Amino acid sequence: MKNDEVFLSRTFDLARRGRFNTAPNPNVGCVIVLDGRIVGEGYHQRAGEAHAEVYALHMAGETARGATVYVSLEPCSHHGRTRPCVDALIDAGVVRVVAAMLDPNPKVAGRGFCRLKNAGIEVRHSLMLSEAEAVNPGFLKRMRTGLPWIRLKLAASLDGRTAMASGESKWITSPEARQDVQRWRAESDAILSTAATVIADDPALTVRWQSLPKTVQDLCPKTQLHQPVRVIIDSANRITPSHRIAQEQGRTWLARLSPDDRLWPASVEQLQLQSCKKTGRSRLDLLSLMMQLGRRQINNAWVEAGADLSGALLSAGLVDELILYQSPQLLGSDARPLFLLPGMKKLFETPRFTLLDVRRIGPDIRMRLKPLKRS
Amino acid sequence: MKNDEVFLSRTFDLARRGRFNTAPNPNVGCVIVLDGRIVGEGYHQRAGEAHAEVYALHMAGETARGATVYVSLEPCSHHGRTRPCVDALIDAGVVRVVAAMLDPNPKVAGRGFCRLKNAGIEVRHSLMLSEAEAVNPGFLKRMRTGLPWIRLKLAASLDGRTAMASGESKWITSPEARQDVQRWRAESDAILSTAATVIADDPALTVRWQSLPKTVQDLCPKTQLHQPVRVIIDSANRITPSHRIAQEQGRTWLARLSPDDRLWPASVEQLQLQSCKKTGRSRLDLLSLMMQLGRRQINNAWVEAGADLSGALLSAGLVDELILYQSPQLLGSDARPLFLLPGMKKLFETPRFTLLDVRRIGPDIRMRLKPLKRS
Repeated sequence: MKNDEVFLSRTFDLARRGRFNTAPNPNVGCVIVLDGRIVGEGYHQRAGEAHAEVYALHMAGETARGATVYVSLEPCSHHGRTRPCVDALIDAGVVRVVAAMLDPNPKVAGRGFCRLKNAGIEVRHSLMLSEAEAVNPGFLKRMRTGLPWIRLKLAASLDGRTAMASGESKWITSPEARQDVQRWRAESDAILSTAATVIADDPALTVRWQSLPKTVQDLCPKTQLHQPVRVIIDSANRITPSHRIAQEQGRTWLARLSPDDRLWPASVEQLQLQSCKKTGRSRLDLLSLMMQLGRRQINNAWVEAGADLSGALLSAGLVDELILYQSPQLLGSDARPLFLLPGMKKLFETPRFTLLDVRRIGPDIRMRLKPLKRS
Repeated sequence: MKNDEVFLSRTFDLARRGRFNTAPNPNVGCVIVLDGRIVGEGYHQRAGEAHAEVYALHMAGETARGATVYVSLEPCSHHGRTRPCVDALIDAGVVRVVAAMLDPNPKVAGRGFCRLKNAGIEVRHSLMLSEAEAVNPGFLKRMRTGLPWIRLKLAASLDGRTAMASGESKWITSPEARQDVQRWRAESDAILSTAATVIADDPALTVRWQSLPKTVQDLCPKTQLHQPVRVIIDSANRITPSHRIAQEQGRTWLARLSPDDRLWPASVEQLQLQSCKKTGRSRLDLLSLMMQLGRRQINNAWVEAGADLSGALLSAGLVDELILYQSPQLLGSDARPLFLLPGMKKLFETPRFTLLDVRRIGPDIRMRLKPLKRS
């Protein structure tokens, strides 16, 4: 039973290899073990293609008979674009299935385990749960809540400033930090930003394959690179078809209160959203936007915006992870702040975080932080 | 010759054991090796007591004859409170001395090596220089420039704030970070702060032995704990004998433009300093203060102050290391800034740092940063 954890760990590593190409599906890895030795393994590589179990069974061939199958997520039991994995496992004659966790997808949700047990296969599940959760935070959150997993990226100086008072900010962080950002973008299904950022910098908001680390390029060849959808909050219809985000490869969704009738490229879509009820002002309701992104099968949203949207997302409790790059410099007390969070007067009101990890990225520091929910 | 570095590394580890008690002397470690085996070792434990070489020779006894001696710093050649170490080495009959670096103390400065060579002892020196420098940054800087090594400690939130607008700030950082601060204080000869801080918080600015980590308590028993001098910048004579810093154990120096004639405890001394020539205002000249601390044999000064002094020290180029604790919380854009560095308009003017290291301290982060000098 101790070995169960060793082989499950391997399924997590395999699963993660698919993280650039399986959206909106989850990342899944599978290992088949006979007499304590791995006889087959695989992972879900791309949406629409075979599941992890199919690759592993194919590699194992006849040795799958009598074997134990390890999977990072419950095997599917429904006919999607591929045949149900439970059928393939039963047909192959495996005797035991160890799955880290139940698939919260309502089409599965225990039915996979049930079918396996009914076929006389021994099933063990719900072990190494936190590791398994970490493989698919986006998919799991969307299945459970309808919302994407939201990572907020910020870059600041040691004194928590993002730009000089003049707005001058380009390249506060190092080339290494910018390469790291490219990798996060490539793992995301959507890049969320604002009209203010687009108008100020006219960024492309694309993944540049050449800028990805070699390890990622190996997992994700140039021809298979998917571009995350660019989602731009543009409540005052300030974005025009001439901005780069409307012209670059990949899709763009403009989140607006009312669409305009300009001639847009086919890759640009206008999403109609309601305004924020609380303030009554012409500000777009962020929760509605996230619900719409969830309905459009966005598992992972990566936010690159200014202090205004960052503060609003945080205040609304919509941030799952804060990715903070710190550059070892001081911009001074006149410079622009990291978050607009006015009105806090007492220490107990301030947003707090758990530090998930901290590491050096070139000359800079990167922290991953999880907001603490207030009781 | 490769082994020379192995044995020298050992001398550095030994030297560091003395770092709580040898001031104003340097930390020195010594290892004696015969036929590839360590036959004696020691370190300078306390100012006024025996040097590292004496302990190591004592342990080696007769086996020192024909041996190689490793020292982290050039052996002394002058009669201080103890006999010159070079005489002891010559008498013991050692045949080779490997010293990481020359002692810049003008009383030594190569004379030790010279005397050894004249006695027919083979001398190798100036290897592993950066490691050797790191053992004694304060002593070495004072010998070379007359100034102490200045470490500036700051604690801030992720958005670079030290306190709420109201001033509320107590315990932004964790108990673990506060324990780490106690260790830094214990390694320092002086704790530098300001009248503003003393008046606001009435801190003790002492080392509390109970708060030190176990490893430090083992090196520095309670009865041998030395209290760093508290140096308080008080140009407007606002500190009174009733403040805790004037009453706690250990000495206090009030850095003032003109002494007052109050009745002070014997442990309190008023230092008379000149005002800053540049501004002409009644602000104390920081370089003069540091020169005075250097003359008073302060090797290591540890600064715990507010944004005003921190900014002024940094602007004056007087900071050697910035020790920055970050608490994973946001205090918001109304809160108090980390540094008062007004007037910077362009990115190229901003102070930059090299990150020496970053680590977790409990729930917090600690960075050690070295200011980059502008060309």
